[in-house]
Amino acid sequence: METLEIIKIGGKIISDDQLLQTFISSFSQIKGAKILVHGGGRAATELSAILGIKTKMMHGRRVTDKETLRVATMVYAGLINKSIVAKLQAQSCQAIGLSGADGNLIQSHKREVTDIDYGYVGDIDQVNDSLLLSLIQDAYTPVICPLTHDSRGQLLNTNADTIAAKLTQAMSKHYEVRLKYCFEYNGVLKDLEDQSSILSTVSSADIKTYIKDGTFANGMIPKAENAFHALQHGASQVNICGIEHVHEANPGTQFII
Amino acid sequence: METLEIIKIGGKIISDDQLLQTFISSFSQIKGAKILVHGGGRAATELSAILGIKTKMMHGRRVTDKETLRVATMVYAGLINKSIVAKLQAQSCQAIGLSGADGNLIQSHKREVTDIDYGYVGDIDQVNDSLLLSLIQDAYTPVICPLTHDSRGQLLNTNADTIAAKLTQAMSKHYEVRLKYCFEYNGVLKDLEDQSSILSTVSSADIKTYIKDGTFANGMIPKAENAFHALQHGASQVNICGIEHVHEANPGTQFII
Repeated sequence: METLEIIKIGGKIISDDQLLQTFISSFSQIKGAKILVHGGGRAATELSAILGIKTKMMHGRRVTDKETLRVATMVYAGLINKSIVAKLQAQSCQAIGLSGADGNLIQSHKREVTDIDYGYVGDIDQVNDSLLLSLIQDAYTPVICPLTHDSRGQLLNTNADTIAAKLTQAMSKHYEVRLKYCFEYNGVLKDLEDQSSILSTVSSADIKTYIKDGTFANGMIPKAENAFHALQHGASQVNICGIEHVHEANPGTQFII
Repeated sequence: METLEIIKIGGKIISDDQLLQTFISSFSQIKGAKILVHGGGRAATELSAILGIKTKMMHGRRVTDKETLRVATMVYAGLINKSIVAKLQAQSCQAIGLSGADGNLIQSHKREVTDIDYGYVGDIDQVNDSLLLSLIQDAYTPVICPLTHDSRGQLLNTNADTIAAKLTQAMSKHYEVRLKYCFEYNGVLKDLEDQSSILSTVSSADIKTYIKDGTFANGMIPKAENAFHALQHGASQVNICGIEHVHEANPGTQFII
């Protein structure tokens, strides 16, 4: 089986021109099949603020109302997606930007209202892997923004980490998939103050210890959960790494079961 | 040769939910290969106004400065393109939204500054017809927004009528292309007050008379020029028609050389 690299970048990288350019250079160096999934970034929050749209929170969770979804559609599918695509094209990477609505790439349903109403948030039902397969075979690099659709005309906001994991699962039928979560550190740090304290591997057995001793806190815990979930659902390799090392075979921290 | 329909819709249709839905229904009824090219619409002007971006004019022409391009990228490639794609998907039309940067679909260069500086406006150099061909052969319907790129990382604003004409030219190598400019009237009206006064044909010989007697005025003159240019450059048929009739074989007014 051929290898497919699925790379996810988050908001902090997208919001910083210099970091984004460094990432683009490293990503362009990946030879062979690759997919980029990007998150939101600060631009959506900034635009919402200018437009006077208040971030609605419910039980500590962000609610995507109609106006917020409109801003997300403009910023994620428009501004961010097309800027990244144009920058990749400049590096001779045949990038093609897509939302989950395009070619029915990612079909989802609006999350059910229980005690919390998340608003226009989509939970993924299915991935059109034949579209991705066909684009990749023609040497295109799909660049995917965190929007899906319900196939009844409604766009929905969907977490980019989850999209990356679901794409990994869908594409593992066709490729040996390596999933890399790319962020502002060069891996999971044993000591946040020491950039050289990167853990080269983290096993599922290690996790409990690391949560207890604080190595894994806040945002890292769901990332680790996604990583192990991906390993159990088709990924041949999952790493967390920095922007400059994304083209390397086994950068940063590797998750092992 | 098989037939390919290239349909262009403008801002007035896009800005009106009811008109857009009527168009979507008619467009979805077109059997076989089709491409949709859409213009801008009022949303970009409205967003610019809210953000305090003033429309810069120079010698009566709109100038696309950096901020205006940013808004265009959000509104054309994000809001409008993805809303149309999601609506088409709801009608079982396998729409896939693209800008000119995606898959290097439309490469352009920034218009040279002579006595007028148009800003970030792109004049088209080449079309990646193999991407369109491959998508259409896989039964996808490309939905294209009026943005191109210079392949050095810069997105550029490009007139949607011109994009439709250039795509017609590029695709005429592979298909018998019918180009339809779709707008709020059911064709070219002999008398603007009389909706039934549709001219069934307009020849290049007629044009001078029609400009003289006022049948063609303002926006219709460049549309007619584009139509005749397309006929001379590969189009097998060019029509101007209304939103409800776009699926018909020869709706509204047909241009003939």
